[in-house]
Amino acid sequence: MTRAFNFSPGPAALPEAVLEQAQAELLDYRGTGHSVLEMSHRSSEFIEIAASAEADFRELLGIGGDYHVLFLQGGATQQFALVPMNLAAAGDTADYIHTGSWGTKAIKEASQLVRVHVAASSEKQSFTCVPPASEWRLTPNAAYCHITTNETIGGVQFHDYPDVGAPLVADMSSEILSRPVDVSRFGLIYAGAQKNIGPAGLVVVVVRKDLAGKARPGTPSILDYAVHAAEDSMFNTPPTFAWYLAGLVFAWVKAEGGVAEMARRSARKAGRLYAAIEASNFYTAPVAKADRSLMNVPFTLADATLDAAFLAGAEERGLKNLKGHRSVGGMRASLYNAVTEAAVDALVGYMQEFEAERG
Amino acid sequence: MTRAFNFSPGPAALPEAVLEQAQAELLDYRGTGHSVLEMSHRSSEFIEIAASAEADFRELLGIGGDYHVLFLQGGATQQFALVPMNLAAAGDTADYIHTGSWGTKAIKEASQLVRVHVAASSEKQSFTCVPPASEWRLTPNAAYCHITTNETIGGVQFHDYPDVGAPLVADMSSEILSRPVDVSRFGLIYAGAQKNIGPAGLVVVVVRKDLAGKARPGTPSILDYAVHAAEDSMFNTPPTFAWYLAGLVFAWVKAEGGVAEMARRSARKAGRLYAAIEASNFYTAPVAKADRSLMNVPFTLADATLDAAFLAGAEERGLKNLKGHRSVGGMRASLYNAVTEAAVDALVGYMQEFEAERG
Repeated sequence: MTRAFNFSPGPAALPEAVLEQAQAELLDYRGTGHSVLEMSHRSSEFIEIAASAEADFRELLGIGGDYHVLFLQGGATQQFALVPMNLAAAGDTADYIHTGSWGTKAIKEASQLVRVHVAASSEKQSFTCVPPASEWRLTPNAAYCHITTNETIGGVQFHDYPDVGAPLVADMSSEILSRPVDVSRFGLIYAGAQKNIGPAGLVVVVVRKDLAGKARPGTPSILDYAVHAAEDSMFNTPPTFAWYLAGLVFAWVKAEGGVAEMARRSARKAGRLYAAIEASNFYTAPVAKADRSLMNVPFTLADATLDAAFLAGAEERGLKNLKGHRSVGGMRASLYNAVTEAAVDALVGYMQEFEAERG
Repeated sequence: MTRAFNFSPGPAALPEAVLEQAQAELLDYRGTGHSVLEMSHRSSEFIEIAASAEADFRELLGIGGDYHVLFLQGGATQQFALVPMNLAAAGDTADYIHTGSWGTKAIKEASQLVRVHVAASSEKQSFTCVPPASEWRLTPNAAYCHITTNETIGGVQFHDYPDVGAPLVADMSSEILSRPVDVSRFGLIYAGAQKNIGPAGLVVVVVRKDLAGKARPGTPSILDYAVHAAEDSMFNTPPTFAWYLAGLVFAWVKAEGGVAEMARRSARKAGRLYAAIEASNFYTAPVAKADRSLMNVPFTLADATLDAAFLAGAEERGLKNLKGHRSVGGMRASLYNAVTEAAVDALVGYMQEFEAERG
């Protein structure tokens, strides 16, 4: 078996050690005679798995007791609707900072449920930067202010979090656990698991306790944060295996040195790739330097007719999933926590080789 | 490794052959160099996995081209809300046939979204039977009529499906794939995966095409069947690994002889257990004979103070998860497709032994 270097934007690479542990335990979880896949979510075994995952996640991000941590279904996309349903009344205004494709989707869904005010946007810059906080036109008494801290498709990342008066709500799907975060500055954080947390089919929500419990009348129970919080995310059957895998990933991050170490590795990995792009006359990174993502690195070739040859050569070398999103074109390398420095070295080596031969 | 006999009501036993295949492929799916867990849902590999699972499911149940088959998140519980949101306007009336705990939950959620008319109920019989169809008081022009074809907790099953004028909507979570179904008699069928389909975190929805596309105004995209149908259940990132495992289960059911064979095995398994209960003076099955479930068999001991000893002895013999639901008490053995006839024989043997010693 040769494991490929997987630069997929999500679902994405998982730590090999995590996969090996899941594999070893797949038919018999630690002597119980059955798989985690076959376990009742009400069993003592699973409750221990779930609680331990939550405790590790809280420890990794330093999440205080004034926040709920919820393990839910529906991905970040469902949160696009749940956030306004739970945090705003129908006539309220919510501010959105618009920095890319995921922000576009969040705004579209919210617009059906709340008055959306786009307080700042980099759309005119083709989403290649974060609008400076000094230019945001925030609404007084907004129900909340929503940001996408890392745009997976455009490769634009907030490197500072703004101070806003309203509760700050952040889609952190593609950067969570890649660096320390001062959670106390946020009202709500959500993150689809399929980048830095685990498999698809799980979304983790961190919500300040005083913000849960205000769902608008008529909200179905399953869409109400307070209902899930009261039942420890077991109001209905949770995605048990995804939760278990997330727990293995959290334990792995802890063992590797925590989010501070992940941040150091991310800086080295992305730094090496951006440096190679900058040093070349063939590759270009479209995003403004100050706002470049350490997680998703989009880049283009000087001659787009070579894209197919570049991708074919990459595939031959076991460098997978480098094709950029169809809305942006070119290439994109996603460098989540499970992508090794060796993978980045292999990619940079291949890029230099390709440029020398075809550039 | 000794695999236990797992009678869990859900998440529940999976076929050992399915687990073995998933284990073998966990780090390297068929030479691709990465796990299904790490695969982009847009990759050709995953699209093939998804399409093949859907094709097998359609073949197993003989589902025609006039139905969508959707692979979604949120479980059956989320469907309790999606059904009225998608199939009824706010002022419409929907009929519900109330035969147990899951029906109670479906009614509660729907009541926030539509006028619910309970057209028949066995609540006065403590949900130990299905009310005869001749006594149902159906609403003319109801938006739909909802039934729970198998009540997991009470162990009550519809052995015939009624003819109603309105589109018939069925929660089949705990019986799907256990017997042939004439899908054309239904407007919509939904089933949480964690009993007969696969792992928790996936719900399969079969909806007649003319019934999708009528979601009420303001429905978030992620709660709209038509949106998911238009995107082949990839409007957002689907629960990829759960979908893959479901596909392995579908292939296993096909290889074992399809749903007709599952029905024969279910009849033998449940028949043997109910016969043992009937033959005893110690065990009692509370459900009316005509409406007993072949999937979930609740039973009580003549002396409830022996419950703990019964469960402890079962656990010692590797007979797991026999405790009845807290709302019903006693015992419950769930006999889904992956529960073998050997497991039922072991249970019956233990029950006879326990009765002889303690009864």
